[in-house]
Amino acid sequence: MTAHLAGGDLNRLRQLNADSVIRVLRDEPPQTLTELSRRVGLSRASTEDVVQELLEVGWVAEVEPAAGGVGRPARRYRFRADAGHLLGVDIGGHKVLAVVTDLDGTVLHSRQVPVTPELGRSERLAATDRVIGRALRAAGLTGDRLWGAGVATTGLVDGTGRVMLSEALTEWTGVDLAGHLRDRVGGAVRVENDCKVAALAETWRGVARHASDMVFILAGWRTGAGLIIGGKLHRGFGNAAGEIGALPAAGWQRAPGHLRARPDQGDVFAAARAGDKTAMAALRRYVKDLAQGVSALVLTLDPELVVIGGGFSRSADVFLEPLRAELDRWCLRTPEIRVSTLADEGVALGAAKLALDMSSPQLRTRR
Amino acid sequence: MTAHLAGGDLNRLRQLNADSVIRVLRDEPPQTLTELSRRVGLSRASTEDVVQELLEVGWVAEVEPAAGGVGRPARRYRFRADAGHLLGVDIGGHKVLAVVTDLDGTVLHSRQVPVTPELGRSERLAATDRVIGRALRAAGLTGDRLWGAGVATTGLVDGTGRVMLSEALTEWTGVDLAGHLRDRVGGAVRVENDCKVAALAETWRGVARHASDMVFILAGWRTGAGLIIGGKLHRGFGNAAGEIGALPAAGWQRAPGHLRARPDQGDVFAAARAGDKTAMAALRRYVKDLAQGVSALVLTLDPELVVIGGGFSRSADVFLEPLRAELDRWCLRTPEIRVSTLADEGVALGAAKLALDMSSPQLRTRR
Repeated sequence: MTAHLAGGDLNRLRQLNADSVIRVLRDEPPQTLTELSRRVGLSRASTEDVVQELLEVGWVAEVEPAAGGVGRPARRYRFRADAGHLLGVDIGGHKVLAVVTDLDGTVLHSRQVPVTPELGRSERLAATDRVIGRALRAAGLTGDRLWGAGVATTGLVDGTGRVMLSEALTEWTGVDLAGHLRDRVGGAVRVENDCKVAALAETWRGVARHASDMVFILAGWRTGAGLIIGGKLHRGFGNAAGEIGALPAAGWQRAPGHLRARPDQGDVFAAARAGDKTAMAALRRYVKDLAQGVSALVLTLDPELVVIGGGFSRSADVFLEPLRAELDRWCLRTPEIRVSTLADEGVALGAAKLALDMSSPQLRTRR
Repeated sequence: MTAHLAGGDLNRLRQLNADSVIRVLRDEPPQTLTELSRRVGLSRASTEDVVQELLEVGWVAEVEPAAGGVGRPARRYRFRADAGHLLGVDIGGHKVLAVVTDLDGTVLHSRQVPVTPELGRSERLAATDRVIGRALRAAGLTGDRLWGAGVATTGLVDGTGRVMLSEALTEWTGVDLAGHLRDRVGGAVRVENDCKVAALAETWRGVARHASDMVFILAGWRTGAGLIIGGKLHRGFGNAAGEIGALPAAGWQRAPGHLRARPDQGDVFAAARAGDKTAMAALRRYVKDLAQGVSALVLTLDPELVVIGGGFSRSADVFLEPLRAELDRWCLRTPEIRVSTLADEGVALGAAKLALDMSSPQLRTRR
């Protein structure tokens, strides 16, 4: 077969090739054309074309060659994380957090305000506007200078950016988040469920960077899950994947309650760590219930990795081993379990990644 | 960017294009080059190259133009399902079934022998050899004339075609099925878990042809699941996906037992259909337990479709509505539920599809 390529074929191939090159440059040290060509499996000439195009749109820069050395050194290219900015917003029950990141997910600015689950709709939206304004001012940006904006919130979110169902937040079901925020950030806004984007953040900047099948568990006063399957966020047909917690038999509705039942309401994790018998018993009951739902996810998907995130992940040292032991009881193959290192910023970072993914197919026109 | 294409690029592109053309020709009536080109998004010249190549290897044939009509009619092309044969084998507890199909999954010959779950390893292997021999003789083929052979069996199967764990069959854990069968069919044999390939069969020849995310439930004296995610069989990191039934809370270990508990041991489905109160109560308990595991899968994956297959699917008329009602209780969104129409041949057909998928990447060299 000879290489007849019509416009459509060429665009498709070009986009595939550009994506491959960007992926290598993002994850690796600066590369020469020869190295890049080998890594992405393209001819050297095709690689050069792609790199030239990426230089033009500003996604890639040439690295200054090191002084000294013999002969003319080959040019090296790096991904330009500073070519643009992303906004990621986490609208939760207890805080609203906005981060401005570079294209690589490094958080440049972070602002948050405390809220309560009982706050009304307009008050929560006002808090969101406020915190976005502060983050953008800190970055010296206006909304229209962003490459993209992503928002994550508790509850089920539909494809248009509307909250279909929120059980945790008052007056939140039905809110048109994408519509409300479009004006404030001067462009398209992508909205998604918080557990889903937290999973995305782990594959981007967290402990799941090399996992193609991963189960993310949000462990906190709410329990939730986000799934990465085949390297991609699994949303589900109605964007309702990962909602195993809705099944009472999964134990998640009951699990955090065991930790609340202590008379002094202090930090149950610290108490368990210090050897407090009541706290340790409460934690055992929590782990037993948590493990039912996690086992259901593991047995269903047989993932490479389980990542524990959410508020309780900071205290994972006191429940990780019991959790592993409980999973061993039920699972045919207990996968590797890792604790998130993204702390409170995981959801907002995942929202920024949503924004990046939205901007990526527009390689040719964006600047 | 101009079209520099090295050998590697070209092969990759050619394979992608050939796959696209085959997919359209398999699922649609005969097409002209112009129609094909529009459907697969390739230039007409690229499409012609691909079709020429597929004509050469015998996957595609030109259709005789209809007599009459004005002017010279455009040539039309069809997929040649008769260009080769596939062997699919289902090694179960109660039967061993072998089918010979064309490349389109039409069963040309089918042979089976009854076995028991208690049969020893060498006896079950001997029964398998016998039934494969009969099916091949019926088709007038020797093993080396097959395009591929696939085998499905109960239990977990590893990537080399060895049974890692079988709880249902005596002496079956550890059997090297691929090794045993390689000599008998004169080529590579792919081995997979029966629920997984039954799911594959539904997307190939069954009621899930257009679903990209689907949960297949094998409902019988054993209960199992196979998952299609993003249009592909989801195997899992250790090939152990879909094993939710191992979790007691999923109800599947207990579910079929309710149907066995009747004193007369007759057909509980027929009795329930006839209004027998005891049978109806047993069926209600079965559905309640079955629905726990199905709900866990649905809440986890939010699939487009659930397909009920397996031995009980023939009697689905008496439990489909109760099952739907039970799913409505637990699921946030109950997906469409369909009953398999592949009857007892689903698993063997899926095994043939495994064989087809194995042969597809070898487009250039196979004949």
